[in-house]
Amino acid sequence: MNNKIVRYFEDVVSGMSVEFGRYLMSEEEIVAFARAYDPQPFHVSREAARNSVVGELIASGWHTCAVAMRMIVDHFYPAESALASPGVDEIRWLIPVRPGDELSVRLTVVDARESRSKPDRGILRIRTEVFNQRHETVLTFISTNFMRKRPTSM
Amino acid sequence: MNNKIVRYFEDVVSGMSVEFGRYLMSEEEIVAFARAYDPQPFHVSREAARNSVVGELIASGWHTCAVAMRMIVDHFYPAESALASPGVDEIRWLIPVRPGDELSVRLTVVDARESRSKPDRGILRIRTEVFNQRHETVLTFISTNFMRKRPTSM
Repeated sequence: MNNKIVRYFEDVVSGMSVEFGRYLMSEEEIVAFARAYDPQPFHVSREAARNSVVGELIASGWHTCAVAMRMIVDHFYPAESALASPGVDEIRWLIPVRPGDELSVRLTVVDARESRSKPDRGILRIRTEVFNQRHETVLTFISTNFMRKRPTSM
Repeated sequence: MNNKIVRYFEDVVSGMSVEFGRYLMSEEEIVAFARAYDPQPFHVSREAARNSVVGELIASGWHTCAVAMRMIVDHFYPAESALASPGVDEIRWLIPVRPGDELSVRLTVVDARESRSKPDRGILRIRTEVFNQRHETVLTFISTNFMRKRPTSM
């Protein structure tokens, strides 16, 4: 996929905000993710969830993060310049995600600056908001990301 | 599984620290997770990774978080009292996780206090450290967790 919003660090402008993605959270996928990675009663089946402390089936918060990442990789991170991230701050799961919810992302570049120690890259601070189909915010987090600069002609 | 370290909020002591888990990160699982949720070149195949900005196949950071969660649910969160978490802070991916790495967890209760607004539960702040087989720290984060108090006889 090469129709990304940016290609290199120089294309990123502090303050830019983009919305993208559409991801249906099926009951099958919610349950499959939970059985593998977060087998709490309120994530693994409708029946176990009904009898649990939460009372209904909701997606694992880590699953919602993973789905947000999928949309970000599909639409924003350029394969030729996005490097591994050193960290994420302030993950907030604000509203439960339920089977049938359709998620989308708004990504806002909070800060974009050149790396002092590694001149081939820039450092981004990105705020991610994840919405459901009613445009309620279900998840927010702030990530740090490294992105390569445009290669100079050598 | 009912051999958990704690059952209710009252069993949790601020400062307690427990180590548990053993999770082999196979190449198959690293690639499967990445194809679903984080299809960057350095996560999806050895070949794509070799030609990528990172140069080798490493696990998605979200995958490592999910695996940590699996170990925490298996060994620590009591099914009868652990409620959904409102958030996680300061995720730091310190060292790449590679195929064949075996991960384990140390969990430290940083703070345990009663909820003022909801008297049926307590609020925990928990520091999670994830180690590889050389006991290098690959990931750390701090979570907020709600846990029910022991039911009183009614």
